[in-house]
Amino acid sequence: MRLLVLNPNTSTGITDRLMAAGRAAAAPGTTLVPLTAPRGFPYIATRAEAQVGGAIALEMLAEHHDQGYDAAIIAAFGDPGLFGARELFELPVVGLAEAAMLTACMLGRRFAIVTFAQALGPWYRECVELHGLAGRLAGIRMLDGRFREVSDVQDEKEALLVDLARAAVEEDEAEVVILAGAPLAGLAARVQDRIPVPVVDQMAAAVKQAELVASLGVRPPTRGSFRRPAPKPTQGLPEALARRFSGP
Amino acid sequence: MRLLVLNPNTSTGITDRLMAAGRAAAAPGTTLVPLTAPRGFPYIATRAEAQVGGAIALEMLAEHHDQGYDAAIIAAFGDPGLFGARELFELPVVGLAEAAMLTACMLGRRFAIVTFAQALGPWYRECVELHGLAGRLAGIRMLDGRFREVSDVQDEKEALLVDLARAAVEEDEAEVVILAGAPLAGLAARVQDRIPVPVVDQMAAAVKQAELVASLGVRPPTRGSFRRPAPKPTQGLPEALARRFSGP
Amino acid sequence: MRLLVLNPNTSTGITDRLMAAGRAAAAPGTTLVPLTAPRGFPYIATRAEAQVGGAIALEMLAEHHDQGYDAAIIAAFGDPGLFGARELFELPVVGLAEAAMLTACMLGRRFAIVTFAQALGPWYRECVELHGLAGRLAGIRMLDGRFREVSDVQDEKEALLVDLARAAVEEDEAEVVILAGAPLAGLAARVQDRIPVPVVDQMAAAVKQAELVASLGVRPPTRGSFRRPAPKPTQGLPEALARRFSGP
Amino acid sequence: MRLLVLNPNTSTGITDRLMAAGRAAAAPGTTLVPLTAPRGFPYIATRAEAQVGGAIALEMLAEHHDQGYDAAIIAAFGDPGLFGARELFELPVVGLAEAAMLTACMLGRRFAIVTFAQALGPWYRECVELHGLAGRLAGIRMLDGRFREVSDVQDEKEALLVDLARAAVEEDEAEVVILAGAPLAGLAARVQDRIPVPVVDQMAAAVKQAELVASLGVRPPTRGSFRRPAPKPTQGLPEALARRFSGP
Amino acid sequence: MRLLVLNPNTSTGITDRLMAAGRAAAAPGTTLVPLTAPRGFPYIATRAEAQVGGAIALEMLAEHHDQGYDAAIIAAFGDPGLFGARELFELPVVGLAEAAMLTACMLGRRFAIVTFAQALGPWYRECVELHGLAGRLAGIRMLDGRFREVSDVQDEKEALLVDLARAAVEEDEAEVVILAGAPLAGLAARVQDRIPVPVVDQMAAAVKQAELVASLGVRPPTRGSFRRPAPKPTQGLPEALARRFSGP
Amino acid sequence: MRLLVLNPNTSTGITDRLMAAGRAAAAPGTTLVPLTAPRGFPYIATRAEAQVGGAIALEMLAEHHDQGYDAAIIAAFGDPGLFGARELFELPVVGLAEAAMLTACMLGRRFAIVTFAQALGPWYRECVELHGLAGRLAGIRMLDGRFREVSDVQDEKEALLVDLARAAVEEDEAEVVILAGAPLAGLAARVQDRIPVPVVDQMAAAVKQAELVASLGVRPPTRGSFRRPAPKPTQGLPEALARRFSGP
Repeated sequence: MRLLVLNPNTSTGITDRLMAAGRAAAAPGTTLVPLTAPRGFPYIATRAEAQVGGAIALEMLAEHHDQGYDAAIIAAFGDPGLFGARELFELPVVGLAEAAMLTACMLGRRFAIVTFAQALGPWYRECVELHGLAGRLAGIRMLDGRFREVSDVQDEKEALLVDLARAAVEEDEAEVVILAGAPLAGLAARVQDRIPVPVVDQMAAAVKQAELVASLGVRPPTRGSFRRPAPKPTQGLPEALARRFSGP
Repeated sequence: MRLLVLNPNTSTGITDRLMAAGRAAAAPGTTLVPLTAPRGFPYIATRAEAQVGGAIALEMLAEHHDQGYDAAIIAAFGDPGLFGARELFELPVVGLAEAAMLTACMLGRRFAIVTFAQALGPWYRECVELHGLAGRLAGIRMLDGRFREVSDVQDEKEALLVDLARAAVEEDEAEVVILAGAPLAGLAARVQDRIPVPVVDQMAAAVKQAELVASLGVRPPTRGSFRRPAPKPTQGLPEALARRFSGP
Repeated sequence: MRLLVLNPNTSTGITDRLMAAGRAAAAPGTTLVPLTAPRGFPYIATRAEAQVGGAIALEMLAEHHDQGYDAAIIAAFGDPGLFGARELFELPVVGLAEAAMLTACMLGRRFAIVTFAQALGPWYRECVELHGLAGRLAGIRMLDGRFREVSDVQDEKEALLVDLARAAVEEDEAEVVILAGAPLAGLAARVQDRIPVPVVDQMAAAVKQAELVASLGVRPPTRGSFRRPAPKPTQGLPEALARRFSGP
Repeated sequence: MRLLVLNPNTSTGITDRLMAAGRAAAAPGTTLVPLTAPRGFPYIATRAEAQVGGAIALEMLAEHHDQGYDAAIIAAFGDPGLFGARELFELPVVGLAEAAMLTACMLGRRFAIVTFAQALGPWYRECVELHGLAGRLAGIRMLDGRFREVSDVQDEKEALLVDLARAAVEEDEAEVVILAGAPLAGLAARVQDRIPVPVVDQMAAAVKQAELVASLGVRPPTRGSFRRPAPKPTQGLPEALARRFSGP
Repeated sequence: MRLLVLNPNTSTGITDRLMAAGRAAAAPGTTLVPLTAPRGFPYIATRAEAQVGGAIALEMLAEHHDQGYDAAIIAAFGDPGLFGARELFELPVVGLAEAAMLTACMLGRRFAIVTFAQALGPWYRECVELHGLAGRLAGIRMLDGRFREVSDVQDEKEALLVDLARAAVEEDEAEVVILAGAPLAGLAARVQDRIPVPVVDQMAAAVKQAELVASLGVRPPTRGSFRRPAPKPTQGLPEALARRFSGP
Repeated sequence: MRLLVLNPNTSTGITDRLMAAGRAAAAPGTTLVPLTAPRGFPYIATRAEAQVGGAIALEMLAEHHDQGYDAAIIAAFGDPGLFGARELFELPVVGLAEAAMLTACMLGRRFAIVTFAQALGPWYRECVELHGLAGRLAGIRMLDGRFREVSDVQDEKEALLVDLARAAVEEDEAEVVILAGAPLAGLAARVQDRIPVPVVDQMAAAVKQAELVASLGVRPPTRGSFRRPAPKPTQGLPEALARRFSGP
């Protein structure tokens, strides 16, 4: 099985983190193919960045969706472009936040989202609500303060993130913790034994859920909001994306 | 007062409809300045199109936000890019759907959204939920079938849209009707007397709410999710937009 | 445009505060006409008082609704009598709380309500829920302790109210603040620069929303729960109100 | 035990219906004392009427609350004035709708409200929401069309009301039916055998719940929103009510 | 009237507490008949225990439901087996949590649940949600730490439980308190005067609500989810229970 | 990987269906081990049966949980005993309904549940709510009428079930369909091409989600509601279950 790991951020350091965590989780026959955003932001952290970054994710999928993949992962927590991708492409697509949250639902009644920057909180909350999972959310906790390098923030802030996760368990009654944000991919395994409830690695969850969806072999819908939209002319869009909107 | 009427669709026919409805509603001292999307879709109708069209709306605002406007209207129902725009620009920004729904709240307990194409329903529903107004929604009703020219769909389908609005009142207990989708701007006035509850014109509502917000003179926040994000380098974005993300 | 500013409290000091804040916000052509409750409470602060005060608001409207007004404002936060007024009178009617909350929705994702007395909290919460806006509420914060004169409470407690607003921003993640309760009309402008998010003045919002609704020129409904009820005999009601219930 | 049956409607025919149904349900030692509104509406059917009728209910309680009653019933579905009454009087007070709905919760997962006039629906829905029971509501069904005499509407429309109740069971999956509106008091017993799920008589429920609350002997709160409000001067209110607001 | 007090716990000490509190509340003509679980747990405190204990409650009802009772009380907070019992038996059945919560709804806008062990919280929360009453819940507060004898925990921890109840009032804005868990039956009366809002005794509420439901004389449903299920063969179940499932 | 397929029904015909569907979905290295309930009901269809059947599921797990399995599936839609199992056993446990619904969330915005008997509807609805997924539910549709043999109902009713699924898509706007109830295991693959949206096979979903959870290797929680309860004496329980509750 071939899975496209689409990092809508431009940071290859984040792609490396995602791939390492993903490979550790992938089934024997699964190949992960990385794809880093050719333009956009080092890492997406706000609604404005998600608006642009999600459009870039669609461009990337338009270029690569027909390269023999069994499924794709949009590998930014917040799932930029996810629902649009499901309309536009026949390839199954899974979001990092979606996969982590659905997986967490099997491990505890309420999950905490723990992340490394204040700005991410409101965007993540809207993501939880968009997935209809607010009733399962114990809370979102975010670190304050600056960090040196986003792709190494999980090393720099490891102890503080563990403290935050423990506080979510003690004070918010979280029964499972998601260490959220693509730069934290792979951290779960390293800190699990310091946190008294299951810790979901978002990338492990995404790889496994992508494998799962791909294995189901369900057909693309011809009804409902995820059926392919009727062809429509476009203007000034990147060529592959334009073709996907206007083509057969 | 100068208001930017930002049409994130490329159809100038829609811009004309929006401007006509907007001018009929504007206060004496208000000037409306139209801006049609230079690239994108004739009209946005799905999540994928809203993802891209919303990013284009941010590009347009980046080019024009500092041209002496008192407020801007993102003039597509569904409000593509609205929350991102509020993060990025100091200019007050109002969405077409947001303005219509908030206005409808003062005219009836539950509003119906009536529109001209099946594809719009799911996207509009997510927009209602994102604004936290699902409890005020009586239902969304959509016409089936093709139409000739989107900018004239309100003429071609007038009678069917009135029937749909009446059905929303009779069967869904709607107490106010929103004729939704930028191509329907201006229709409310023409059909109000055939519909037994108030009919909100989305563009009239948007112009008045934009005038209102501009007149309040509130300061941009320095806390919360709509404060300006910290500067961040970008790659491959249109120049004005890049400057807005990375600049002071 | 002529707007009736109906203060359902008997305190003329509060009416003065409302008029000052309202005049500062009104459009050039707008005339505000004050009307203070001839009977009732100095200021309404509980459900029992709102039950009686709302009935008095209906009496006041019955006396004045046909004096050439374009719209009326029920100028007590909590909106006593608002929905009944919409049933009974053709005149558009806007509530102070309603206008402030709908306006706040355009300025932040979640609003705080900050007020000057403990008793007001539970009544205000029910008002928020009645408007279907609980999902947008960050929290309600209330001062403890006595005050000297209700119409001057905004001066006496200014610093404490600012502290409360700042706490709502810091601790409840409020992105916009409503200084609530008619006695606080006009305070927003004075304290805005000490609060890091937009502060909505309830009376400014009410005047602008009333202007907005009046300008729409929508027709009274002949269906739904805000259509005029069928005539019904009454007994022992004030004459004008009796006539409105029983008359044509 | 002495229970005050406060009919906030002026129709003594309705009081008679309430008393007959109430007496059939009362425990051996319970005495029901009827009190018909001295002013107001023959029967309350809209929000405007409930606003005024609820204020009249408070006046009636102010006159009678200290006449040795163990509890009072506000005997109009919609519970006009109920929460205000709980603030103002030490006497336990139960609402007709509240008692019927809480009782229905023990007889089925979701209850239907079936009533005799279109106008009642929206007001009843707001009542259900105010009690926080919308999640238990299967739906509200209302008869169309005129009736001769409100106090005999249960005889005139009996067959149609049974049809409506059966439709609520068949189509809305109601598991228990409330025949709602004071004029329908006593009807449940007569039609129960034609409806395949339990039918709650609102007045039977109210008498039993009032007996229950009275028997608990709980003390009035000194904290929270139902503690007695601080004394406050009033102007132009009926004497007993004024005394209750301003007195010790 | 004869009421079966079904204690699904095996602790007769808890049965004694339940009976004492129940007898203090029962009407003159009411006889309470205790029945202690012949197998199971000293007291049910988790979902696993409720799964088994609820099945045991059904066995107990199968043995005793036709012994001339007018109603039964499942006397464990959390209501194990309640909805199944309603399907299976014609006898009206009331749950301890259900009765306490519905009663609390008449005494305050939001109730707190205060209990003696951490483990109980999550199970109780699911019980509140299952009853559709989460909107009325102020919060659940639980004691930490061990206790000596569960049937005496109310004596051992009285002062701490009062503190917890007071904290629920002060910090969670609870307006009524439920001292929850069968071992706390009877405590309310003893501590009411140290808690500034009404305190509901769960067993008093259950006896009164059971009397109430029994007195209504409603017929068992022949439609909806509480009608008797179609007969079905079983295997390896206790004889009386098997007969109830398979019999006529 | 070894997965225990725990059928809490006594029908081996259903176990055969489950195993066939499961084997078709299992990864190469996965072994499924069937276990049919030794006592209980041919198939669980009501709350009462789920109460007893869930307790039997716990007994079965107590006997088998330590036989070298990597995870267990409780293979009845409605998930009887699931949350209790998570408290009691270290083995990861997945529910049939849970797995199907979480998987469906990745394939459409709203899922329909389509099943073969009226009785199942209310129980399934409570299951959806317990999982916090009511916001994702388009509706539940159930066949009317009798069937011959439960383990063959999917053959007998195939055409009617397809009609029901299509109606859910057309009328309820379902975007993904779950054919629910263990007796329908394996049907999805056979009817997918007659239904215009993805159809989830519950058993395929359960096997894949169980593989997924097992592969994560998360540790059992030592905090929160799924940590192992403190040991507690029991009375009259099957030996293995008693040991699990009371043992170390």
